[in-house]
Amino acid sequence: MFFASDNAGMSHPEVMQALLDANSGFAMPYGADAIMAEVTSKIRTIFEAPEAVVHLVATGTAANSLILACLARPFDTIFCSDVAHIHEDECNAPEFYTGGAKLTLIPTTDGKMSPQFLGSAIRGEGNRGVHGPQRGPISITQLTEAGTIYSLDEIAAITGLAKSYGLKTHMDGARFANAIAALGCTPAEMTWRVGVKALSFGGTKNGLLGVEAAIFFDPSDAAEFELRRKRGAHLFSKNRFLAAQMLAYLTDNLWLSSATSANENTAYLAEGLAKAGAEFVGPVDANIIFASLPRAAHQKLKEAGAVYHVMVGDLDGEDPEEPLIARFVCDWSISHEMIDQFLDILRT
Amino acid sequence: MFFASDNAGMSHPEVMQALLDANSGFAMPYGADAIMAEVTSKIRTIFEAPEAVVHLVATGTAANSLILACLARPFDTIFCSDVAHIHEDECNAPEFYTGGAKLTLIPTTDGKMSPQFLGSAIRGEGNRGVHGPQRGPISITQLTEAGTIYSLDEIAAITGLAKSYGLKTHMDGARFANAIAALGCTPAEMTWRVGVKALSFGGTKNGLLGVEAAIFFDPSDAAEFELRRKRGAHLFSKNRFLAAQMLAYLTDNLWLSSATSANENTAYLAEGLAKAGAEFVGPVDANIIFASLPRAAHQKLKEAGAVYHVMVGDLDGEDPEEPLIARFVCDWSISHEMIDQFLDILRT
Amino acid sequence: MFFASDNAGMSHPEVMQALLDANSGFAMPYGADAIMAEVTSKIRTIFEAPEAVVHLVATGTAANSLILACLARPFDTIFCSDVAHIHEDECNAPEFYTGGAKLTLIPTTDGKMSPQFLGSAIRGEGNRGVHGPQRGPISITQLTEAGTIYSLDEIAAITGLAKSYGLKTHMDGARFANAIAALGCTPAEMTWRVGVKALSFGGTKNGLLGVEAAIFFDPSDAAEFELRRKRGAHLFSKNRFLAAQMLAYLTDNLWLSSATSANENTAYLAEGLAKAGAEFVGPVDANIIFASLPRAAHQKLKEAGAVYHVMVGDLDGEDPEEPLIARFVCDWSISHEMIDQFLDILRT
Amino acid sequence: MFFASDNAGMSHPEVMQALLDANSGFAMPYGADAIMAEVTSKIRTIFEAPEAVVHLVATGTAANSLILACLARPFDTIFCSDVAHIHEDECNAPEFYTGGAKLTLIPTTDGKMSPQFLGSAIRGEGNRGVHGPQRGPISITQLTEAGTIYSLDEIAAITGLAKSYGLKTHMDGARFANAIAALGCTPAEMTWRVGVKALSFGGTKNGLLGVEAAIFFDPSDAAEFELRRKRGAHLFSKNRFLAAQMLAYLTDNLWLSSATSANENTAYLAEGLAKAGAEFVGPVDANIIFASLPRAAHQKLKEAGAVYHVMVGDLDGEDPEEPLIARFVCDWSISHEMIDQFLDILRT
Repeated sequence: MFFASDNAGMSHPEVMQALLDANSGFAMPYGADAIMAEVTSKIRTIFEAPEAVVHLVATGTAANSLILACLARPFDTIFCSDVAHIHEDECNAPEFYTGGAKLTLIPTTDGKMSPQFLGSAIRGEGNRGVHGPQRGPISITQLTEAGTIYSLDEIAAITGLAKSYGLKTHMDGARFANAIAALGCTPAEMTWRVGVKALSFGGTKNGLLGVEAAIFFDPSDAAEFELRRKRGAHLFSKNRFLAAQMLAYLTDNLWLSSATSANENTAYLAEGLAKAGAEFVGPVDANIIFASLPRAAHQKLKEAGAVYHVMVGDLDGEDPEEPLIARFVCDWSISHEMIDQFLDILRT
Repeated sequence: MFFASDNAGMSHPEVMQALLDANSGFAMPYGADAIMAEVTSKIRTIFEAPEAVVHLVATGTAANSLILACLARPFDTIFCSDVAHIHEDECNAPEFYTGGAKLTLIPTTDGKMSPQFLGSAIRGEGNRGVHGPQRGPISITQLTEAGTIYSLDEIAAITGLAKSYGLKTHMDGARFANAIAALGCTPAEMTWRVGVKALSFGGTKNGLLGVEAAIFFDPSDAAEFELRRKRGAHLFSKNRFLAAQMLAYLTDNLWLSSATSANENTAYLAEGLAKAGAEFVGPVDANIIFASLPRAAHQKLKEAGAVYHVMVGDLDGEDPEEPLIARFVCDWSISHEMIDQFLDILRT
Repeated sequence: MFFASDNAGMSHPEVMQALLDANSGFAMPYGADAIMAEVTSKIRTIFEAPEAVVHLVATGTAANSLILACLARPFDTIFCSDVAHIHEDECNAPEFYTGGAKLTLIPTTDGKMSPQFLGSAIRGEGNRGVHGPQRGPISITQLTEAGTIYSLDEIAAITGLAKSYGLKTHMDGARFANAIAALGCTPAEMTWRVGVKALSFGGTKNGLLGVEAAIFFDPSDAAEFELRRKRGAHLFSKNRFLAAQMLAYLTDNLWLSSATSANENTAYLAEGLAKAGAEFVGPVDANIIFASLPRAAHQKLKEAGAVYHVMVGDLDGEDPEEPLIARFVCDWSISHEMIDQFLDILRT
Repeated sequence: MFFASDNAGMSHPEVMQALLDANSGFAMPYGADAIMAEVTSKIRTIFEAPEAVVHLVATGTAANSLILACLARPFDTIFCSDVAHIHEDECNAPEFYTGGAKLTLIPTTDGKMSPQFLGSAIRGEGNRGVHGPQRGPISITQLTEAGTIYSLDEIAAITGLAKSYGLKTHMDGARFANAIAALGCTPAEMTWRVGVKALSFGGTKNGLLGVEAAIFFDPSDAAEFELRRKRGAHLFSKNRFLAAQMLAYLTDNLWLSSATSANENTAYLAEGLAKAGAEFVGPVDANIIFASLPRAAHQKLKEAGAVYHVMVGDLDGEDPEEPLIARFVCDWSISHEMIDQFLDILRT
């Protein structure tokens, strides 16, 4: 019963098979392998973006930081949400890779920036000549760290605002597939067609061992990427083993079917939680649930071996009825049986 | 007929099997997995270093740069050979990770620094008060980028010199296993027993998909490693897939048997090259050969599909007899058949 | 009629004389001059801190950034107010000098952080293991950018909180003298006795051409300062010309009498503004006033040649009665005549 | 008897007077003062470069590092001589300001790079794709750290080579005036007319308290300078006091007459040294002498209070006849009397 994160589950068997298949003979190193060419081609097709530049790295933080380093100068500030992964969970990697750029935090509702607050922040920065940081790119996370989804209109409002100031928008898509599965739109519709310039296209949280694609829809933004990747020590000599994972992910829509499965699992779990009286914090748009249960319920679940994060409140406190907020995440590999087992414990 | 590098061959079947085995159920992320604990334990045993701190990363440049960032301050200079990988082939990654430290290049013979030149360089730096860079760590590569091996005495002379100035020595062991196989000594004898403080223990060039271990023999040197690794975006959420590779590598001495095989292949190839009249540049100590052949021989081999790097000279020049120097590298997966095929072409 | 800032007025005649006096013969460069030794000695006396380490730089941003780089590691976050100069007006210099540390902004009232919000922010950072930034130093500005003053108890509450988490407190004292003049306490009482570890002791805004002292009350914190200063290109060969300014500043309490004069000028101006119907935004504690006047009044003053910053509102708007908030700053060199001239225009 | 450096002497009385004159009333801060406009205008005239961009900083290291940061990317290498000040005496400031660029050292004769060695180094870098550093700017020092002067043809050979690879050339002109005085050419002839793109125009070693001009002959290269200067904490609020020094320096050719005087003093000293049997190391082209004297002579001079640097050899060694190499530098303020006093001691 593991709902702590979508970074701890099995890799998909198709992905493992692709690794085995790729392990044959010699392959040119550093991205010059034949599989990589297929990956680029497939991503261009899926995103309807024949000019897109595609590079692979092994971690989401690397994809985010390297893309942002291509879009931001060291004296810029990057606008992001106050719960953004790039702010909270990357140990200053964006600051490191950009050479010391700042992050300006935008208040959020359900994990989403509003154009109003973003506009106010943009106006508040970059107007002190050389004294303050300069206005840099906007970074949004889709789906958000709160498990919620920006509608296409909401994205367009943000990118439009960015564009009105001459700024570019990056999308942290660590859970891009889950958002697409939930919105039912195409990858193009959720990215370049609504003004997104560069995307961290996540694979690791959706069944890969560890691969993310950095995708630039405007090739000129990618000019320094390869040098910055190498300088960051993120260029794999045996790139074919990254490419093979990504190719399997892209083949037969594995990326989308896995995410759909994760979202369905989550909906099923949420339904069970609701029936058991849980109170939800924010909407459940994809594969992440924030919900409160009484302390006693958490204690019972934890004792039975359930693994997940209590976000607000002290599990060891006194009042058995006090509601504690927890986060539950499902990846593709969660089964209905596991959820039923969990809900059974909750109900007893 | 692929002799271009040891970074382009197959991964070892045992390693692939270990990946498959590791892909079961949930594993705590970010290095808290059970396999990682086994890796640390095994490395401590193999290196007879019960206190050693062990962390995994996916590229050799990451291992080198992160270790050096733990040993050097931004206003230091790192002493290394003038053909060092950290200087020539890491696109300023050490400078990036250290926050701008300098590399002081030591002249080499057959890829090896002499203590005389190193001593002279150390004396030449760090004596201008705050004006010049301060003396930082020494980094040696074993086996060297020239394919040669420092004897244990030669290493001890360098680390002893370093120690006399209060400096620490790092070893870039991208081909550590090949050096051990050649010297026939133990890992402890080639590292901490002769004064090496930290090691980049390579796996990628010897049959892994992409894993290197950063090993600190003095735990206090490792204090910042984990934070610097995360900040560098080199912490894998699904660390178990790095750990599984490394554990297979350490099991039943796979690391050593693979390197022994690579060295034997190389010796066999060198023997054939010698018989065909090649002239060697420097000794062939392990799995790398630098040798010259007439231009016509190279042209014939290339036409037949052999892949390797001509280092000095222009393949398309005129004189068929002009000797061009090439590098030939064998990894564990090269077969006698492949070498025979190559030598047959050379001889005809 | 110049009230735009305290960085645009004359240098004090005593300071100019000291420069002339220092310009005699040869002086050892890079801080080894005899005047520097006197500066250190005098600062130790004035601060009752016989072990204090003292270095000079030419800009406040240099003093702040270099001190913070000694106190914070690149993966830390620095806690400061949301109107802090280090955040708003240093173009990412702290991020640059620290190698990419983050700034965590604490909400303010009248420019001052409350221990409550600070405590909440400290608890909110540094609790995600290696994933988030680590807790770094606290930086407070005294007097604040809003022109207000922390009481000694308020400082003690912040440094005490910092200490309870093992964190150190830096004070940006660009207007340190104005705060001392207002509080009537000793330099020791406002710094190390209430837990401040390092101070940017400002001179430039109080009559010097351009000198600030970096003062470390705990010498061990200063270990890297000189190397970081040189690496930052802030070491003056002809340090005697910085030292001479600072020595004049410290002699006969020029630093304090100049600040007292500036504060008195400001009080006199504030009195006149009040009589003219201005509404004040926050208290006027020292030499900075934030106050609103009707648009028409601003227009009249500007036309008459008064120079100051309108902070909120558009000078060219329509309604002559709309109140616009402006900032008025007096330095030591402002005369009563100039203020009277200003107030006369306002009154007519 | 001070010949240790040209960074320890008096500032010129005209410069001090200009400071006093500038200290009147209020001046717009941060470079918007009226004196700065005059400085820019005068430099454009003197350099016959009506489009040149001019900014002031207080140290030579700042001028060099900030210019190089505008010309080099973090993954580049800067080509400079193996005795370059930017390599030996700036404590990694260029590496810091560029975000980790490398310096490739070119062997020198008499402190000067030859185009042959430079060409070889350029060919040796930047040809390993993303693996090695990329080719960045060339930096030459005129006059050199060895006290020698590149002829205009020698400069043109270097800049021409640079240009053939698409690279730009920076000139570290800490002693630019001394070189002009020696060559008798115009500033334009020694810079942009022979292909120099940006110049650190030194003042501090030639009679100023501490001011250097960063001059860009191609305005597009200066695009980031002001932001990088502020981020580096090198923007002075009271810029007028830098500008006043520089304006005095440019007025009535003070810069040139001071350098001419320093060169003449040096020639006079060299003549005396020659007569006393000193052996010269390299030519004496301007205001720096490298020469050897017997140990006993050095001991006698030092005892009599002469201050200069013995570069090679141990003053406290045994053999009184052993020649020790010393460096003697004259600035504008050295008098014939002082030199005569020195030579008298040497002769007795």
